[in-house]
Amino acid sequence: MTTAEDIALIETTVPIIEKMGLKVVELRRNYAKLKLPIDQNTNHIGVIYAGSLFSLGEVAGGALFLAAFDKTVFLPIVKQVDIRFRRMAMTDVTVEVAMTQADVERISAIAEKEGKADFELALEIKDRSGEVCCIVNGTWQIRKG
Amino acid sequence: MTTAEDIALIETTVPIIEKMGLKVVELRRNYAKLKLPIDQNTNHIGVIYAGSLFSLGEVAGGALFLAAFDKTVFLPIVKQVDIRFRRMAMTDVTVEVAMTQADVERISAIAEKEGKADFELALEIKDRSGEVCCIVNGTWQIRKG
Repeated sequence: MTTAEDIALIETTVPIIEKMGLKVVELRRNYAKLKLPIDQNTNHIGVIYAGSLFSLGEVAGGALFLAAFDKTVFLPIVKQVDIRFRRMAMTDVTVEVAMTQADVERISAIAEKEGKADFELALEIKDRSGEVCCIVNGTWQIRKG
Repeated sequence: MTTAEDIALIETTVPIIEKMGLKVVELRRNYAKLKLPIDQNTNHIGVIYAGSLFSLGEVAGGALFLAAFDKTVFLPIVKQVDIRFRRMAMTDVTVEVAMTQADVERISAIAEKEGKADFELALEIKDRSGEVCCIVNGTWQIRKG
């Protein structure tokens, strides 16, 4: 599958994500950068709603899956996410996610053998000035489809 | 402010929450029950998207704030949330949130004195059969407005 198809998967497959206007900034092997606009995601005080910030972090795990793992073999699920809201997000925000090729191969090998394998991600959601608005720590899992 | 106005605040103030179709089932002193429909919130495999489940838990904290605290004095923020996805949500889901009057008074007194006070909530998001789909543990804060 091409990267264009992966980008469409990330941006449009889940209707509520599409309504948030989440976009792929960059998607390449073992790396993704995503952007969430403030416009569709404001809360009662005009900053980005917590649930939209969470979704940006959660989708980052799915984007990394597409960037790193063999989607003809595995499916991703999210098991657990912890998010800390450090400061209000008053601009569009972005998140970057990456994994080393060694980790991709190690996790894939476990999942090939055992049918599933967990992977953990520690992410920072940053505003336009580079300030960290949220810290996201989560566990995702790949499973043989 | 009346309960009808509080219900409108919960359901319609944040546009992306309104798009999720989140509804108040019951709102009374120190208690709220909220419902998230599956229809607007499906993911790529037809179950409720993780970000929508998170939002249901997050809004529960805001709903409890309206049900329990003096909103002419305090404002609520969410500081941190941990969510565990135990099983897929294949139906509409609900969450209940409550606080004892003693805790409401204790937390209000701290915030009156110190300008802010944290409160923690442990929540279960349940499907129509009563199965727990997600476990949410979070810290919210009330601040003098």
